[in-house]
Amino acid sequence: MLYTSESIERIVDLFSTLPTIGRKTAQRLTFHLLRQSTEFVDSFAYALVELKKNVKYCSSCFNYTETDPCPICSSTKRNKTIICVVEEPNDVFAIEKTSEFHGLYHVLHGVLNPLEGITQNDIKIRELLQRLEDVEEIILALNPSVEGEVTTQFIAKSLKPLEIKTTRIARGIPIGSDLEFADEATISRAIEGRSVV
Amino acid sequence: MLYTSESIERIVDLFSTLPTIGRKTAQRLTFHLLRQSTEFVDSFAYALVELKKNVKYCSSCFNYTETDPCPICSSTKRNKTIICVVEEPNDVFAIEKTSEFHGLYHVLHGVLNPLEGITQNDIKIRELLQRLEDVEEIILALNPSVEGEVTTQFIAKSLKPLEIKTTRIARGIPIGSDLEFADEATISRAIEGRSVV
Repeated sequence: MLYTSESIERIVDLFSTLPTIGRKTAQRLTFHLLRQSTEFVDSFAYALVELKKNVKYCSSCFNYTETDPCPICSSTKRNKTIICVVEEPNDVFAIEKTSEFHGLYHVLHGVLNPLEGITQNDIKIRELLQRLEDVEEIILALNPSVEGEVTTQFIAKSLKPLEIKTTRIARGIPIGSDLEFADEATISRAIEGRSVV
Repeated sequence: MLYTSESIERIVDLFSTLPTIGRKTAQRLTFHLLRQSTEFVDSFAYALVELKKNVKYCSSCFNYTETDPCPICSSTKRNKTIICVVEEPNDVFAIEKTSEFHGLYHVLHGVLNPLEGITQNDIKIRELLQRLEDVEEIILALNPSVEGEVTTQFIAKSLKPLEIKTTRIARGIPIGSDLEFADEATISRAIEGRSVV
């Protein structure tokens, strides 16, 4: 027997199912928790239960929320004429961290992927098209992957007849990185998207 | 507001307190759990509560166990005349994984560290000296740190009057690594501990 306790074995197995956590890290986390107080570990367990119980999707933007509509959609301080479209809820947090964007969001929960059979009905595209009243600009902020590109083009085409300004976030050289190490596709896009200084 | 849900914020905070997990990984784990079924997350929470409730110290070897004595101490297949002394419970698992050692263990739960005020009464040295009946060999398998060395010497000295064979695990070049990159202290110990081929 490797572990002298089934409870230890179970937690190591469960931690190992999580992304970025291998078996060695899972073991390290388990032994760390064993050294913590029962109160701490119990509160961790309680917070996990609460997470799944409380967190729902906003019926407007489909971001995670505990209230419906979510705090962003219901805020009076946000500019409701501009919607930023992202793939997943964590993209919302990534953009919120910059404090640069003050409009609303729309979470697609995926991208079009014909090879895997993911079509427009599997992601929240129809829901986006249904909330365009008073909207003046749609910013497409999908990941720069093939699927992200396909989805960007599909949404842009769907919006064309509605005459709503549609933009996409810039693709280029990341801040702090080196031109020398950028791939050719990124450099091409960076030249294409050049601006006057 | 960065997160649109307090429950998300709480779990991200809790994950961030764990070793090897930074804020970005904590966020990634939280979003992963949100995508899992309620049953899975609830069973994770339950396993955490069970971990702290069920896991105790073995009153003989001080390893983690759910029964007392632990499965290793109570096994009829283990050689009870040889005890391997380690610092922490995870060291037991590291050695068990090799399937090379068939004796018993003794977990000190730390090492002597005069600078931090950790003396022989703070770790399980007295408990080791009290279980030496019928023991023929003590293997000291502490980490090759200054504190591990001090503790190894201290225990060896304590065992001397009892005339029990006392050994220590070899320090040398790790398998698969390169002599060129080994530090001088390791190379010195490897030469010192050389054996006839």
